[in-house]
Amino acid sequence: MKGKPLASIVSAGLSKFGKLEGLYAREIFAQAAKEAYERCPKLDPKKDIKALFIGHMGESYEHQGHTGATAADWAGLLHIPATRTEAACSSSGAALRAAIFAVASGLYDVVMAGGVEKMTHRSTPEVTEFLAMASDFPFEQWHGITFPGLFALMATAHMHKYGTTEGQLAHVAVKNHYNGSLNPKAHMQKEITLEQALTSRVIAWPLKLYDCSLITDGASCLILTRPEIAKRYTDTPVHIIGSGQASDTIGIYERDDFTSLKAAKIAAKQAYEMAGLTPEDIDVAEVHDCFTIAEIIAYEDLGFCKPGEGGKLAEKGETTLKGRIPVNTSGGLKAKGHPVGATGTAQAYEIYLQLTGQADKRQVADAEIGLTHNVGGSGATATVHIYRRG
Amino acid sequence: MKGKPLASIVSAGLSKFGKLEGLYAREIFAQAAKEAYERCPKLDPKKDIKALFIGHMGESYEHQGHTGATAADWAGLLHIPATRTEAACSSSGAALRAAIFAVASGLYDVVMAGGVEKMTHRSTPEVTEFLAMASDFPFEQWHGITFPGLFALMATAHMHKYGTTEGQLAHVAVKNHYNGSLNPKAHMQKEITLEQALTSRVIAWPLKLYDCSLITDGASCLILTRPEIAKRYTDTPVHIIGSGQASDTIGIYERDDFTSLKAAKIAAKQAYEMAGLTPEDIDVAEVHDCFTIAEIIAYEDLGFCKPGEGGKLAEKGETTLKGRIPVNTSGGLKAKGHPVGATGTAQAYEIYLQLTGQADKRQVADAEIGLTHNVGGSGATATVHIYRRG
Repeated sequence: MKGKPLASIVSAGLSKFGKLEGLYAREIFAQAAKEAYERCPKLDPKKDIKALFIGHMGESYEHQGHTGATAADWAGLLHIPATRTEAACSSSGAALRAAIFAVASGLYDVVMAGGVEKMTHRSTPEVTEFLAMASDFPFEQWHGITFPGLFALMATAHMHKYGTTEGQLAHVAVKNHYNGSLNPKAHMQKEITLEQALTSRVIAWPLKLYDCSLITDGASCLILTRPEIAKRYTDTPVHIIGSGQASDTIGIYERDDFTSLKAAKIAAKQAYEMAGLTPEDIDVAEVHDCFTIAEIIAYEDLGFCKPGEGGKLAEKGETTLKGRIPVNTSGGLKAKGHPVGATGTAQAYEIYLQLTGQADKRQVADAEIGLTHNVGGSGATATVHIYRRG
Repeated sequence: MKGKPLASIVSAGLSKFGKLEGLYAREIFAQAAKEAYERCPKLDPKKDIKALFIGHMGESYEHQGHTGATAADWAGLLHIPATRTEAACSSSGAALRAAIFAVASGLYDVVMAGGVEKMTHRSTPEVTEFLAMASDFPFEQWHGITFPGLFALMATAHMHKYGTTEGQLAHVAVKNHYNGSLNPKAHMQKEITLEQALTSRVIAWPLKLYDCSLITDGASCLILTRPEIAKRYTDTPVHIIGSGQASDTIGIYERDDFTSLKAAKIAAKQAYEMAGLTPEDIDVAEVHDCFTIAEIIAYEDLGFCKPGEGGKLAEKGETTLKGRIPVNTSGGLKAKGHPVGATGTAQAYEIYLQLTGQADKRQVADAEIGLTHNVGGSGATATVHIYRRG
């Protein structure tokens, strides 16, 4: 049945995003869990939460895998089933889907989905190497290309095919930095100018420093219930009414086209169909702006504009807080930060705030329908979720 | 409803287990998928399989994460949603559960669960280090203890409390090597004697070489359907009628007792209750014998004998192929091998063969009910599943 809720969010939590020195990932996750518990006094976490699915991308950062069990323990949920999901930077988008399945199966009434990453204690070359494990070892990593280079290939292809400009990329950065300046949990809470964005140092042309997301520590979580019982826990649930996921070749060299992510388009189609909605119905969206070009491609893959028109959409300000379709009100990966495993459910956290009127200075008026778009690596995984105010 | 199938296995595949030189994990997984496809000619993989959940423990072995997408592509399933699960050595036990939820939710009719690990191309110190990431970094790894040491602590505790002997541990090794000698896919297909087991070199006393499982390359997969449609694909499905999972502290230093794994006991209780069965009903089981002591503890945690009597159960031969309750007919992790991410669904593969009469020289007569027990790390995760011949 179209638009029928799959699961409902009754609470959500987010740690501070930033450089969280001296904390292990498990401790950061506990911060997110604590906020979710405090926000939902009718929930008895230890009694009610029956399973945890947690996105975590890299075991190398802390030389620590087995994240499910440690996160469950530190969140006060010892002995519940706890599983880590990994799908590169969409690890917690995948966790959210696994949690939805668990609830939709009827086997559990209440579960937690979340994500975590601790990155900033490692050097930039180390982080770059760990992130690169999400690209293809034999044909990408081995030849030395890393993610800025891969997304730069997409950017140049998009510029070549559609005339997208460096200035349009910079508009995305300026918007997201502005939104981040309104988000007290964002890693970067400072506005930047177009001039600053355009003159920042080149990382992989045409991508400059301000076109790239941040290396950040952080955690996020959602508490999900069967829709039928959501009102036991809150008067203001947010229903998940669409969920899509798809995969693609890990190497971009095998794809027909670099100007679009096929996995994201398939995932979006699934989610829209399940929700019985179209792109025009979306009031607010959090998309995977690991690089500014990725946000522009996301506009197109999600149907917010026609293929090739994403740059203009940004330039015209249609995705700003006051625009036609506000995107990345949280500041996005660009300014809020991108603790990779945490990003998918952190996007859902922002949509939860928006749809329940808790987004404070960055609140989108009357937001009823939200969307999240979470991409793994250079697009070998994508998840898309659609949410409705309860 | 007790004993109601959650999902049904309509086909299964296993790669050769061993030292598979020159192959990437994705290629090994394709071997397992190919067998599953060939075994089920009524299945059109590309058309019918709607999602993949794949257990993979370590991204470090091949400097490669994002396993879901690569495995889906190499298995001929490009563009389906594909998610890696990680719960240490129970990574594919967790994948199986995620797949069960996906099917039980009614959102998918047919999905694949599997697992893979490529380990043998790395040096033993490297493998030891990568495996250790499943133990606690601040309080275990950092102090230099690795898994043989952790399980040796369990063994000495068990010997102290119950009088378990080195000879009893050796009986487990002899049995599993015998079973492995009958399994053409096992890594080690040679029998050993008690004398050989007892005089093999000490790894971490009381555990000797033959008390330890193997470093192995391998992959496994299952094709699962909603129970209602299983007969569309095969006349001989195997129904999954119980599924349990639990977590525990990652550090064993925080546990009350080293002679039992609490997570395994909880997971077993859940699975038995769901199936409406007791330990006496189990005809054949695959348990997590990463070390011989782990198999003895598994007997007790699963209720095959009373606490403390696991050593005697092995010594009396009650778990041999002709015994009261045959355990690890495949050869187990001990002789078949332990490609860590692949182990959970490889156990299910053996039970599938046993319950469909395809286990050849190691066939247990009239096996109707089977069980798998898959443990992550030193027991911070455990999954237990119960199966019934369809």
